[in-house]
Amino acid sequence: MCLMVKCALCVHLIYSDIVQRSREELKAIRETNPGLKPTLAIIQVCLCIGLNVMQICLPRQCTEEEVSDEILRLNEDSRVYGIFLHLPQSFLSKSVRNAIKPQKDVDGVSDLNVGRVVLGDQRDGFASPIAGAVLEMLARHGVYLFVYAFRHMLLHLHSKVFTEMFVAVVICQHVVRSSRRWIQEQQYQPWRLHPLKLQPLSPVPSDIEISRAQTPKPISQLAQEVGLLPEELEAYGNTKAKVHLSLLNRLQHQPNGKYVLVAGITPTPLGEGKSTVTIGLVQALSAHLKLNSFACLRQPSQGPTFGVKGGAAGGGYAQVIPMEEFNLHLTGDIHAITAANNLVAAAIDARILHEATQSDKALYSRLVPSVNGVRCFSPIQMARLQRLGINKSDPSDLTPEEVRAFVRLDLDPEKVTWQRVIDTNDRFLRKITVGQANTEKGNARQTQFDIAVASEIMAILALTDGLADMRARLGRMVVGSSRNGQPITADDLGVTGALAVLMKDAIKPTLMQTLEGTPVFVHAGPFANIAHGNSSVLADKLALKLVGEEGFVVTEAGFGADIGMEKFFNIKCRTSGLKPDVVVLVATVRALKMHGGGPNVTAGVPLPKEYISENLQLVADGCSNLKKQIQIAHLFGVPVVVALNAFKTDTQAEIDLVCRIAEASGASAAVQCHHWSRGGRGSVELAQAVKKVASQKNYFQFLYNLQDSVVEKIRTIAQKVYGADDIELSPEAQAKIDYYNQQGFGALPICMAKTHLSLSHMPEKKGVPTGFILPIRDIRASIGAGFIYPLVGTMSTMPGLPTRPCFYDIDLDPVTEEIKGLF
Amino acid sequence: MCLMVKCALCVHLIYSDIVQRSREELKAIRETNPGLKPTLAIIQVCLCIGLNVMQICLPRQCTEEEVSDEILRLNEDSRVYGIFLHLPQSFLSKSVRNAIKPQKDVDGVSDLNVGRVVLGDQRDGFASPIAGAVLEMLARHGVYLFVYAFRHMLLHLHSKVFTEMFVAVVICQHVVRSSRRWIQEQQYQPWRLHPLKLQPLSPVPSDIEISRAQTPKPISQLAQEVGLLPEELEAYGNTKAKVHLSLLNRLQHQPNGKYVLVAGITPTPLGEGKSTVTIGLVQALSAHLKLNSFACLRQPSQGPTFGVKGGAAGGGYAQVIPMEEFNLHLTGDIHAITAANNLVAAAIDARILHEATQSDKALYSRLVPSVNGVRCFSPIQMARLQRLGINKSDPSDLTPEEVRAFVRLDLDPEKVTWQRVIDTNDRFLRKITVGQANTEKGNARQTQFDIAVASEIMAILALTDGLADMRARLGRMVVGSSRNGQPITADDLGVTGALAVLMKDAIKPTLMQTLEGTPVFVHAGPFANIAHGNSSVLADKLALKLVGEEGFVVTEAGFGADIGMEKFFNIKCRTSGLKPDVVVLVATVRALKMHGGGPNVTAGVPLPKEYISENLQLVADGCSNLKKQIQIAHLFGVPVVVALNAFKTDTQAEIDLVCRIAEASGASAAVQCHHWSRGGRGSVELAQAVKKVASQKNYFQFLYNLQDSVVEKIRTIAQKVYGADDIELSPEAQAKIDYYNQQGFGALPICMAKTHLSLSHMPEKKGVPTGFILPIRDIRASIGAGFIYPLVGTMSTMPGLPTRPCFYDIDLDPVTEEIKGLF
Repeated sequence: MCLMVKCALCVHLIYSDIVQRSREELKAIRETNPGLKPTLAIIQVCLCIGLNVMQICLPRQCTEEEVSDEILRLNEDSRVYGIFLHLPQSFLSKSVRNAIKPQKDVDGVSDLNVGRVVLGDQRDGFASPIAGAVLEMLARHGVYLFVYAFRHMLLHLHSKVFTEMFVAVVICQHVVRSSRRWIQEQQYQPWRLHPLKLQPLSPVPSDIEISRAQTPKPISQLAQEVGLLPEELEAYGNTKAKVHLSLLNRLQHQPNGKYVLVAGITPTPLGEGKSTVTIGLVQALSAHLKLNSFACLRQPSQGPTFGVKGGAAGGGYAQVIPMEEFNLHLTGDIHAITAANNLVAAAIDARILHEATQSDKALYSRLVPSVNGVRCFSPIQMARLQRLGINKSDPSDLTPEEVRAFVRLDLDPEKVTWQRVIDTNDRFLRKITVGQANTEKGNARQTQFDIAVASEIMAILALTDGLADMRARLGRMVVGSSRNGQPITADDLGVTGALAVLMKDAIKPTLMQTLEGTPVFVHAGPFANIAHGNSSVLADKLALKLVGEEGFVVTEAGFGADIGMEKFFNIKCRTSGLKPDVVVLVATVRALKMHGGGPNVTAGVPLPKEYISENLQLVADGCSNLKKQIQIAHLFGVPVVVALNAFKTDTQAEIDLVCRIAEASGASAAVQCHHWSRGGRGSVELAQAVKKVASQKNYFQFLYNLQDSVVEKIRTIAQKVYGADDIELSPEAQAKIDYYNQQGFGALPICMAKTHLSLSHMPEKKGVPTGFILPIRDIRASIGAGFIYPLVGTMSTMPGLPTRPCFYDIDLDPVTEEIKGLF
Repeated sequence: MCLMVKCALCVHLIYSDIVQRSREELKAIRETNPGLKPTLAIIQVCLCIGLNVMQICLPRQCTEEEVSDEILRLNEDSRVYGIFLHLPQSFLSKSVRNAIKPQKDVDGVSDLNVGRVVLGDQRDGFASPIAGAVLEMLARHGVYLFVYAFRHMLLHLHSKVFTEMFVAVVICQHVVRSSRRWIQEQQYQPWRLHPLKLQPLSPVPSDIEISRAQTPKPISQLAQEVGLLPEELEAYGNTKAKVHLSLLNRLQHQPNGKYVLVAGITPTPLGEGKSTVTIGLVQALSAHLKLNSFACLRQPSQGPTFGVKGGAAGGGYAQVIPMEEFNLHLTGDIHAITAANNLVAAAIDARILHEATQSDKALYSRLVPSVNGVRCFSPIQMARLQRLGINKSDPSDLTPEEVRAFVRLDLDPEKVTWQRVIDTNDRFLRKITVGQANTEKGNARQTQFDIAVASEIMAILALTDGLADMRARLGRMVVGSSRNGQPITADDLGVTGALAVLMKDAIKPTLMQTLEGTPVFVHAGPFANIAHGNSSVLADKLALKLVGEEGFVVTEAGFGADIGMEKFFNIKCRTSGLKPDVVVLVATVRALKMHGGGPNVTAGVPLPKEYISENLQLVADGCSNLKKQIQIAHLFGVPVVVALNAFKTDTQAEIDLVCRIAEASGASAAVQCHHWSRGGRGSVELAQAVKKVASQKNYFQFLYNLQDSVVEKIRTIAQKVYGADDIELSPEAQAKIDYYNQQGFGALPICMAKTHLSLSHMPEKKGVPTGFILPIRDIRASIGAGFIYPLVGTMSTMPGLPTRPCFYDIDLDPVTEEIKGLF
């Protein structure tokens, strides 16, 4: 919303998008002039309803023409809702009036009543009877409105000459109306979603062809349709936008919508289509049942995009568009994570080198240098001193022992756990030796690169609830330990603030849309084995506010339900405090046949005949896995809807059998869905089932208490979720547990790093394996993200490129700018 | 611009931002229906003026309320300039009229004349006398206007039933007016720049404080002020936007503005403020002399931002804002370069591994797999076959020898020249061993990481003139050589298309603004030693069109004029075909004193007394360097304005002396400037001098011909520019020259990799060294970027972190989101 007032040759604009700036200015005024109470009171009135002041100065001797010029310019500013002028009568000539009249006129400039502008004396501000009366009148209209010669005043404040301040209060019927609308906008807005029409073709074209055939809505339009304010949006081109976290504050009193998790049965190596079900479900809910809904998805790594075929934006007629933007840089979050992660790595090795080559004194004089003859600790160094128990703030007071403790992190190069990352499938970086140049003076050591999404910073992004929390988690990250066994953190390296700065934009979720023009948040994409494999808490929270009480947020968990869903409940929901209402469990006839004893399914090899012709016995036997995964969800007290993701080769008898067994196993409903070939229309039955089940009462609970011992927590998951008889700890794992307990990390939740291809740790064991002992090979911890991760088997954190990577097919038409060959 | 017409229950919108889509549709129509000429003629009329058609379908049985609802929604769409309705009379009820009237009304809906809508018969299209007459009338108004039931028609085309097509032509006075405006917008727009006011404080606050104290204009507003169309802009938040290259096409007939290069004398290690002069100059030109001007800057690496203090956004009151955005991720171009560069690296090592572990046959069957029983080469593989002289297109036709030649790049691991990159100061990556994991089967090799901006892809981005050219250059990049000495390219690896896809957004320059709200392009930032150190050709070209004939584009060259300016002329201008009008040569009293024999200047150490008190002798002696650099510019036939970047400690006598000597040495003018402390106002004198000199005729020429031999070209630069007696080639360098000549790379320009701290190769030799032989240690080539770079001494391509990196001071306030400590 915008006002414009001409007073004392200053033109004032009120933009709602500079709230923060005005608050800072208010703070500065307060600090500089403690005696300014009455005037500040008025400023506060202004700020408390979120109105903010910006001015454009016209030259002191400006001409009528310059005024009309200024007005014409404002006419073209799309953020200006209306224009209000306070001009000397002599300026209200025809040319000025003409400049205003035929142009944008939301609030009826033609009715402008110049006589109703009141100027208060600057020395009494709020106390002035005139200004007070005007404010009273405004209050009767239910709104305070206020325009202030802000910069003018500030100038005087700066020069400490405070003699010419004045207050101008303007009232006008249209201003009041427009302001009332502005205040309404601060409240929850019912959606006015205009879905995009889909005309599915048969046979179904390639994913990129489908994506390209649909013209997405401008992202600003979608944002407006779902009740976002323009100032809450940062567009990145026309199809992606970041959403400000201030939304959580604005809608804090708005009840959350229903919270739906999409999980899957134990999959084949081909995947069973959880993302596609997620998109299909929101397309059905929003575009067909006319229920507000949001999908929350993980951002995929760019590495596999160029490695092995397969996008992550859904598929067929259930996709996020434009899919190439989704699969490529998006809004740069993963690049920011890479930069932050690698700054920590560079800081570690540089610190090891500097400590190895400098005396305590030299280190100290460099770390706490004399600047213009003054030495002082930076805030992050003060924090380190406190952790060391040194309560001194003057650098010259430290004893030599204290100096030594302060300057030497004494990192053990053998015990650095922090790895560098890169968002490329680069297998040659799986094990490397760094520091071999002469300049590194013999400090070479072996280390590795992981794929960027395996960074702990990605896990933090997914679990944090705001900037302050993210900054704190980044500082807590343990990067290795000192030679005497103390954990060394990012805070010790002094790098926390820089990491927060690098991540300041990444923390905002990215808004995109489905093929049917319904909203999607894409945010974070941590690994599903060494991390928890769920999209961000923040995206879910924003979406739950936006959909409103009757709406739905559909979020997805990586891998099978035994891993992704268990972590969703025990880690993500515990962190966020959110309670899930329904689990949608995705199954395919193909995966069920595999669990029933069908032959191996391998990517790139044609499916054996069992999978393309009817085989009810295999299906019936394989439903054991489905039943077990339903039971796992019930352990947490959450009802299950089974979504049978239909393939062309499935027979009706097979489908009916699965649905019958699923319902007999306790699923609240079991339906087949056809979003891949038909879009949201193909998943309407699923959407109806989800809607019905979500309205039932449920009894969500965690599987373990954080205060249980680490071993107890691991055992609970192994026995209750995986069906193991017990667990077996390697001596290494036991030693780590002792170490974590000693360091006070024992009360963190558990994040199992296990294969997703079996309920057990043995990928070849399908169905519901029993009678096994789960071996815990090693245990690691992501202290910043806030979990301990036991390793069951070896986990690759760096994919490789095949002989023929899919980049052979990818190209860009230089004329049309069209991308070819991307899935 | 937007029209909306209701006919046959379809609501039509015309958006100018979907030009491309409509062209495709037209093409599709043409291909499907060759007989459709008359109708197509009308469509073409519509398309040739760039009007495009999109429709929103209302339900067939829609109610009056739904119509007003639709209108209300359009009112809120900021891209809709005006709304035109063709409705049955019964729909023009009060509620519908009310929905239209008080809302956005650019073109005067109140004047809507329903009776003047003409419907033509679909069967005769253009031939219809009615439609024809209407079009004639439109033509008399200088405009063709056309609204078409587009999707409706397409639907019928899809189903091959072409019976119900119709044409609706609408004429209305306001439409004509609005269209005329639209057509005008396609032409060059005079600027309506509204500078931001600056109120410089004394003493000058820190860079980030100054940056934060100024509220930038919304970037969309700045774009509009300088004549960009909304569809040419891709906002990245509110302060940065990418600009489409289509602008070059739109303004192809617009004459270029004046082209100004900012270069410097041989600097001290502290730098003499070229970027700051560049910003100060455009602030003076645009905000004070009211001449259109654009600054074109390089994007800095993010590495040093967290390493050693010093931003690249200018300084003091001559800065690009927000400076933290400039110095951090910006719009992700460097991240895209990193991703593209490292995809090549991963492809190289993976290929070496796969060739080492597979037979010819296995490689062939994987590289050219059978998909659904069909084997075929991808286009990039066909290109490789052609380079190998194999003119076959059926994979089964190749002989075993041809298969071998095709599948084996046979890269010599010792001769891989391609390095990985990272945008972090990580000294431990200067020399590393990769491939040490078991999975890489003993193929470990030594290599290194460079800082991202040292990537050849960065140099390509800086030199390319469009997507097609960039794609071609990416494909030509030589990554190493085969065991029998053949160069291996990105094309051979099959990765070119993927690189182009990764770089598709990076090729668009980023628009930002100075502290005084004048426009800046930030684009590319190649190294100034191993590459040419200049910002992008594309940004300069876009800016030269935007400023118009009387305007100025100010661009900066890295290092001293002997390096940056020489490369600007011989490499960048040769590639772009642009002719520079003026060189602004930046000098400081400090640097001149150093050249006159003053003591060493070292970063982080207080300046010796010679530099802070008057010493006319040192200044006079040091002007030898200034004189030599002026002469170098004159070698190229370009006039010079010397800009003396004033420091507090400079005395008037010193300043006068420099200006006198500069003018005596042939500079067209020499003026001091004070932009750092005063903003553009402090550089008005410089701006006036540049304006005057730019209007003089000049005689720009290159220093050498591309057809000269490589040795001759190097010698020319060494003798004429550096003042060397001769050059001396190492045997290694000589062998490389022979190799490049043999490969046909001999006609490329030369990009000298020499220290910037002396005109010679010896950093300690100040002033104008003579009597030396320039040693050429080695020669390398960036074939994709298109230059050969002789190495004079060793060049570090990976900076390190100091003991106390500046990240210790950097932090983010989690509440205000304010960044602290960034310079």
